[in-house]
Amino acid sequence: MDYESLKSPTSFLKLMLGDLPDGVVFREYETWWEAEGKEISASVDREGTPWLRMYDVFGTRVDEILYPPAYWSMLRNGYRAGTVWRLFECGSLVPSYLLGYLTAFYDTGLYCPYTVSLSTAIPLAKYADVQVRSRYLPLMLRKDDTAWQGATWMTEAAGGSDLGAGVETIAEPAGVHWVLNGEKYFASNAGAELAVVAARRAGAPANVRGLSLFLLPRYREDGSLNYSIRRLKDKIGTRSVPTGEVELHDSQAYLLGKAEQGIYLILETLNISRVANSIGSVALMQRAIAEALDFAQHRTAFGKPVVEHPLLRQQFEERVCLLQGAFALAWETVRLLDEVWQETPHYSERYHLFRLVAHLAKYWTAEQAVLAAKWAMEVHGGMGVLAEYGVERWLREAMILPIWEGTPHRQILDGLEVMQRKQAHELLFRHLAPYAASQDLEETAAQVEALLALPQDEREARAEPVFRQLAIFSAETLQRRLEKVAGVEVHLE
Amino acid sequence: MDYESLKSPTSFLKLMLGDLPDGVVFREYETWWEAEGKEISASVDREGTPWLRMYDVFGTRVDEILYPPAYWSMLRNGYRAGTVWRLFECGSLVPSYLLGYLTAFYDTGLYCPYTVSLSTAIPLAKYADVQVRSRYLPLMLRKDDTAWQGATWMTEAAGGSDLGAGVETIAEPAGVHWVLNGEKYFASNAGAELAVVAARRAGAPANVRGLSLFLLPRYREDGSLNYSIRRLKDKIGTRSVPTGEVELHDSQAYLLGKAEQGIYLILETLNISRVANSIGSVALMQRAIAEALDFAQHRTAFGKPVVEHPLLRQQFEERVCLLQGAFALAWETVRLLDEVWQETPHYSERYHLFRLVAHLAKYWTAEQAVLAAKWAMEVHGGMGVLAEYGVERWLREAMILPIWEGTPHRQILDGLEVMQRKQAHELLFRHLAPYAASQDLEETAAQVEALLALPQDEREARAEPVFRQLAIFSAETLQRRLEKVAGVEVHLE
Amino acid sequence: MDYESLKSPTSFLKLMLGDLPDGVVFREYETWWEAEGKEISASVDREGTPWLRMYDVFGTRVDEILYPPAYWSMLRNGYRAGTVWRLFECGSLVPSYLLGYLTAFYDTGLYCPYTVSLSTAIPLAKYADVQVRSRYLPLMLRKDDTAWQGATWMTEAAGGSDLGAGVETIAEPAGVHWVLNGEKYFASNAGAELAVVAARRAGAPANVRGLSLFLLPRYREDGSLNYSIRRLKDKIGTRSVPTGEVELHDSQAYLLGKAEQGIYLILETLNISRVANSIGSVALMQRAIAEALDFAQHRTAFGKPVVEHPLLRQQFEERVCLLQGAFALAWETVRLLDEVWQETPHYSERYHLFRLVAHLAKYWTAEQAVLAAKWAMEVHGGMGVLAEYGVERWLREAMILPIWEGTPHRQILDGLEVMQRKQAHELLFRHLAPYAASQDLEETAAQVEALLALPQDEREARAEPVFRQLAIFSAETLQRRLEKVAGVEVHLE
Amino acid sequence: MDYESLKSPTSFLKLMLGDLPDGVVFREYETWWEAEGKEISASVDREGTPWLRMYDVFGTRVDEILYPPAYWSMLRNGYRAGTVWRLFECGSLVPSYLLGYLTAFYDTGLYCPYTVSLSTAIPLAKYADVQVRSRYLPLMLRKDDTAWQGATWMTEAAGGSDLGAGVETIAEPAGVHWVLNGEKYFASNAGAELAVVAARRAGAPANVRGLSLFLLPRYREDGSLNYSIRRLKDKIGTRSVPTGEVELHDSQAYLLGKAEQGIYLILETLNISRVANSIGSVALMQRAIAEALDFAQHRTAFGKPVVEHPLLRQQFEERVCLLQGAFALAWETVRLLDEVWQETPHYSERYHLFRLVAHLAKYWTAEQAVLAAKWAMEVHGGMGVLAEYGVERWLREAMILPIWEGTPHRQILDGLEVMQRKQAHELLFRHLAPYAASQDLEETAAQVEALLALPQDEREARAEPVFRQLAIFSAETLQRRLEKVAGVEVHLE
Repeated sequence: MDYESLKSPTSFLKLMLGDLPDGVVFREYETWWEAEGKEISASVDREGTPWLRMYDVFGTRVDEILYPPAYWSMLRNGYRAGTVWRLFECGSLVPSYLLGYLTAFYDTGLYCPYTVSLSTAIPLAKYADVQVRSRYLPLMLRKDDTAWQGATWMTEAAGGSDLGAGVETIAEPAGVHWVLNGEKYFASNAGAELAVVAARRAGAPANVRGLSLFLLPRYREDGSLNYSIRRLKDKIGTRSVPTGEVELHDSQAYLLGKAEQGIYLILETLNISRVANSIGSVALMQRAIAEALDFAQHRTAFGKPVVEHPLLRQQFEERVCLLQGAFALAWETVRLLDEVWQETPHYSERYHLFRLVAHLAKYWTAEQAVLAAKWAMEVHGGMGVLAEYGVERWLREAMILPIWEGTPHRQILDGLEVMQRKQAHELLFRHLAPYAASQDLEETAAQVEALLALPQDEREARAEPVFRQLAIFSAETLQRRLEKVAGVEVHLE
Repeated sequence: MDYESLKSPTSFLKLMLGDLPDGVVFREYETWWEAEGKEISASVDREGTPWLRMYDVFGTRVDEILYPPAYWSMLRNGYRAGTVWRLFECGSLVPSYLLGYLTAFYDTGLYCPYTVSLSTAIPLAKYADVQVRSRYLPLMLRKDDTAWQGATWMTEAAGGSDLGAGVETIAEPAGVHWVLNGEKYFASNAGAELAVVAARRAGAPANVRGLSLFLLPRYREDGSLNYSIRRLKDKIGTRSVPTGEVELHDSQAYLLGKAEQGIYLILETLNISRVANSIGSVALMQRAIAEALDFAQHRTAFGKPVVEHPLLRQQFEERVCLLQGAFALAWETVRLLDEVWQETPHYSERYHLFRLVAHLAKYWTAEQAVLAAKWAMEVHGGMGVLAEYGVERWLREAMILPIWEGTPHRQILDGLEVMQRKQAHELLFRHLAPYAASQDLEETAAQVEALLALPQDEREARAEPVFRQLAIFSAETLQRRLEKVAGVEVHLE
Repeated sequence: MDYESLKSPTSFLKLMLGDLPDGVVFREYETWWEAEGKEISASVDREGTPWLRMYDVFGTRVDEILYPPAYWSMLRNGYRAGTVWRLFECGSLVPSYLLGYLTAFYDTGLYCPYTVSLSTAIPLAKYADVQVRSRYLPLMLRKDDTAWQGATWMTEAAGGSDLGAGVETIAEPAGVHWVLNGEKYFASNAGAELAVVAARRAGAPANVRGLSLFLLPRYREDGSLNYSIRRLKDKIGTRSVPTGEVELHDSQAYLLGKAEQGIYLILETLNISRVANSIGSVALMQRAIAEALDFAQHRTAFGKPVVEHPLLRQQFEERVCLLQGAFALAWETVRLLDEVWQETPHYSERYHLFRLVAHLAKYWTAEQAVLAAKWAMEVHGGMGVLAEYGVERWLREAMILPIWEGTPHRQILDGLEVMQRKQAHELLFRHLAPYAASQDLEETAAQVEALLALPQDEREARAEPVFRQLAIFSAETLQRRLEKVAGVEVHLE
Repeated sequence: MDYESLKSPTSFLKLMLGDLPDGVVFREYETWWEAEGKEISASVDREGTPWLRMYDVFGTRVDEILYPPAYWSMLRNGYRAGTVWRLFECGSLVPSYLLGYLTAFYDTGLYCPYTVSLSTAIPLAKYADVQVRSRYLPLMLRKDDTAWQGATWMTEAAGGSDLGAGVETIAEPAGVHWVLNGEKYFASNAGAELAVVAARRAGAPANVRGLSLFLLPRYREDGSLNYSIRRLKDKIGTRSVPTGEVELHDSQAYLLGKAEQGIYLILETLNISRVANSIGSVALMQRAIAEALDFAQHRTAFGKPVVEHPLLRQQFEERVCLLQGAFALAWETVRLLDEVWQETPHYSERYHLFRLVAHLAKYWTAEQAVLAAKWAMEVHGGMGVLAEYGVERWLREAMILPIWEGTPHRQILDGLEVMQRKQAHELLFRHLAPYAASQDLEETAAQVEALLALPQDEREARAEPVFRQLAIFSAETLQRRLEKVAGVEVHLE
């Protein structure tokens, strides 16, 4: 490939996937970003955390988020392009994730609202009562600037990984509604018109079985605020999504699915975001490499553009290779999720395969995104650490990727679990076998088996190198498959 | 060792080095940081880039840097403790670098003023005319709050690595002074009373041979500003050192050493900082690990402190092991520099050995500092990306370390050069042989030889993995030597 | 007087009052401000609203206010000097208000914590149960850096003037404590260890008779937070006092005085602050004039210092004259309050006289402070509107003065009320008669009588010019009295 | 009038002036502001001073001003509407100043770029060589988004009033160009494509006679930057116009008019801005009153909207009356300037009349703008001092109005001068006689004559009250004339 393809997300997607779905507006979307969106995105980042106007000037609680007006047009543009509604029109997740890739190439944080809106629309479509569904889903699927946004709020102050202990919000039935009381501590897309919220049923056990999933509108039937935003968090990156602390005081909510299956619904919801995290990580990787490339082509040292210095050129080739592998791995999670997203408990083997690949991809792509962003700063030298040029922005944005949707630690342990309980590694090896060298596959499989045979504490302690190796093996194998499809070969002209 | 030692830089230094030099106030210095300095440092970081008051209210140029007053007391405290004057009292660099380690543990950026002051005092002592030396050196060695600061300004807008082409500042002789005209683009410790500055002699060739080194006071003889600060750079970290763009308009300066030997003096100066960069990197690594440890000891998930989870515990053990290796490698640069810093051109073999180790250490420790800071954020989960808790600060600070004093790319190529021209790798292998397993040493040596045998472009392209392997080998070998000396063994209680 | 006296608050106080109380450390306090405090104050203002750390990194609510550490030393310095404890040592309010004058000259906002602490200590001393008093008052009167701070929180979101309707916080008796639930909207000195708080007794009427005053500690008996800070307000000035929104959830509090006399206690508390507001306004006036003077003495135009231009010189003379009148009026409120502060309902005539003078002084001095600050900016020309030089700070600080403790509108109407109900104007005319020209007094009295004779709506509509005239007349008359005492005569040398 | 007219600048203009010029898009322009501009303006103010990117990432000087992209669309909208080009199409200044009034109602600072562009286009049209004029003027008069901007830079660090001594920039002839060297200290609309600049001819006397006026393009013929921006000033308001310090290093410029008439051309230029300052002041007054009105209509206290409280209602009526007077005075400067702007030295009596009215209007309207903004804050009570609600913004914006284009001090002295030298007061009294009560006119005239009869120092010292009285008299008289024309009568419904 011509390295110039790295500077365009659409071009890179075409290169990797061959054709893109018909009828989706990739080029138009990218053109808008280049013409207008990039500058808006840079100015939103520069301005920092938006203000939260909690009360209007008359003392009425309003919880208005004060972004510059251009933010809202940037945000609305992605909804119009179809980051959410296309799923329900096409019956496939592919357009959403592709548009997500483009979004994340230009603004990592902005991909979050679309993701959590999708993660709201899906359980609403799958699990809500018919009345609730018919009332709210069409609002989310509007194709104009009035589409409602969603949000997915699970984490509380006591922590994010250990949901069984960490969720202290209590839900009590009250007629058609349930009534929720509690707090959410990392509430992405605070201000959304709808949120899906994890809560513990009053009197239920203090573990994951006590959790249910609810749909929570921003306003009560009487027009009053149904949740309040205590404050917006001052994050170092992803300023295009307002992340808040949310308080629920007798908030009205609708139960989604069966009460006692809540934990499954919660995990389904997180899966959608986890895939988006991988896609966003790869897009950010591409962006960081593209920025580095552009700089290296124009910066001269020792008489020639620095991109022509052999060591730097070598580094580019290696990064691009990692990018392609990371893309192949992330893309596989999209393909698999697209097959299984309509499943409900109990799940198929394909679903468990998806889970393992999703953990591997989340782990590996986020890591690579951070390293690519760090490297892009180094390529820029002293310019890289100045706020002025925004190169450092990609590292700030990237650092959220290994943390959101579960840290590396969490991915490894959850990956271990699905291997132990569901033999997902065997499913994976079968899945990859057609494209893998058999010796590599056998060696990797042997490492995994050896790990799983250890006593629990030791198994956990020693899991990381094996998990990493499994991720690399999967990425490289899937990349090989993609190349067969699309005939990609990348090299520096 | 007890992991608690990781929380104190003095304790860790004692653990690694056995005894620390007598008569140096390590504990007192650390106690001050814990009682007062930490909070000051956090508030300076929080406040962001200081203001530059270019003119007073009457329109007179003053270039005053508006830090909060506590900054100045924090800064002065390190000079009083002896970050500079102890070199000239003890005849050894060891106390300076040890105090630098403590400083960098608490405030990475603040170590910079001490480093560049040391890098000013040394060439002033070695190369200035006796009158210049006797006039200015005592001002830098004052033990009270009036000690003058130094600064070392080489880089210009055209770039930092390629000094031969990049330095466009012109120096012309004018009686006792030279007169300099030009700009410096990344001028650390802007506002210093003295700076050593690279400039090209008028009419000299446009390569490194045309450069000389000068001593530039802040004020002219008549009291007017001798350089002006165009602006302070808005860096993402190290806000405790003001980095500016500096303009020289007919600035008065004194030649240091012989005019045509300038490039050697410049490189000597950078060596001092490069060693400090390694020391600071290791200190920051320790700090990041200490923060992660403190959090993991107190944060509970799944019924126990997260530090007791096997996978996280394993990660701690690996990080501490890397920390010890990085320390051993960095410390070796201090020891070697302490032997050779008084040399002048032409240099001994020992000096070339030092150069290679310094490149390896700069490369490896900065990389490890970034990775440790990134990991500490991940250990903190969502808290890690909030400005509020300052965990993210260590990554912001760390990102300057691979870039200041030459990027990884630069270290590798300069390391290659000293191996090719001076056979420094052979000196290194001889140096390490007593502590290394002979098979490891031979394998590493073979890799290096194979690399050096390649044609230049290929040699450069393939250098990174070999250079990394050489750094790891050196770090592990030197760690083994330290352990023999200090009997260190670290494990989690 | 020598205009140089305008540059020192102590000198100006001596000039106006003759001798200052023995044993109070005015000069030392001023010296500290000049040497250290000024720079700290400027940096606190520059940094903007402090951060509120609501939760520690483990998710525990802490509501910590993140000022730079120097803030706390600046704050503590005033408590040590005796802004609060001297009242209880000397039995006179004079030292407190004099130290307040000095404080406000250097940092208007910082005078607020001392004022509200005093306004907490006084009702605690006068109205608390003996056990509550003996437990808490000594903590407020410590002479070292551990003195507890107070705060006075009345206003809620529905508004500040109309307390009868605006206070919605509910208090219910619960054993030794009362339990409070509600919110306070402009809570100055948020974070104070003690606050006096207005609340409505459960079931009491929705007017001022339903209000009581309570003492609210920051921590409950069990160590938990007794109130929470929802956020700190982003004010344009007075950044040296954290103003927050405070939430009371089952907060423990002690009743002060008799439940049904609450409104009287509330007004007593506000009186103390109102006097401080006048004192602070005059101090800020002096500061603004001093800054303008310093600039005008050193700035040259048309060949001479601008202070020597006749028109500017004339403006200085007029400002100084206004300053002296404003001081005399404000000072009279101190003298009168010092006579009556120990009264409890029902109050003496002297108390009602005090009330009228306090309304006049609050109205007039705050207005003059704003105008002086505005004028000082104009004297500085273009420099006046730059954040860099801090001249504009005095206007930002000043603008709070007409608003805090009741807007001009409020002062006028409350002044009208005390004249109508208590004939306070007659008391005032009698009080001023010895120093006033009898014709002026008669004319002013006639205007007041004519106003009071109007129907209510018309009386209110036409009150402002009469009230202003009464303020000017009082200020000029009291200034004449002071001059007799201190022999002051100010003119430009 | 219905008070609601106060909320719309177009409605208020119609009320005051009867019909507005045909074919100008007042309603459309206002509609855009209400729909989009207001939010953009608020976000630009919130974001603070824009960043100046001095160098691109490759180290090339670019001096790019980093406003959010919406700023540029807001700015361009006003040029499209015709703030500049309509003068040259209609031959009248009226449309420009009316559009300026609308602009300033919404964003005081934004009116500045249009004003200085107009103040550039006029001398370019009147005084430039035909080639220069035909090359540059059409670029300024484009009706699309590519119109060039202008700027007028006179003031240097030594001060603004005393141009004779303060301008140290030196101009030397160099063929078709002149070459300028020096600095401009308050350079409004830094970044403009064209600037008119005052400079001293090399060798010319150090007084106003040595000054000439030049046209300075942003780029040299060879495409390089012709001036550099040293920094943008951090003003407390008017953030919609970038005000910088500008450096001229061998900058190419074109002489405007005759070299020795420079001071006249400078004063002509300043006159255009001075009128705009008055128009902007009145617009800001209206805005502040409108904000206060809206609040007072919706805020309730003591059982009714606060606007219905008699005292506040009275304050509104007085403010509106002052507004109408201020408008009438400011509008008279527009009418007079529209008659005389094409004059060149030597000027007519009408021109001198204009000058006096312009000084009176600048003085009086700016003062009233500040007082109205201050009062609007007081009406809002505690909300008024919070950055969150932007009420305080109008005071920050207003404070520049008495300072820009000459402080009150300057207006008074320059007003005195034109009365003494040109008997402009007599012209004024004749001008106003038809609308004034003859007794008022005679009294005012007598005061002026008495003042002018004093020795100079005393005359200056005593000038302010007379000048104020003259302004009030003129405002009231001109208001009476306007009422006759438009039949305005304003009262609260």
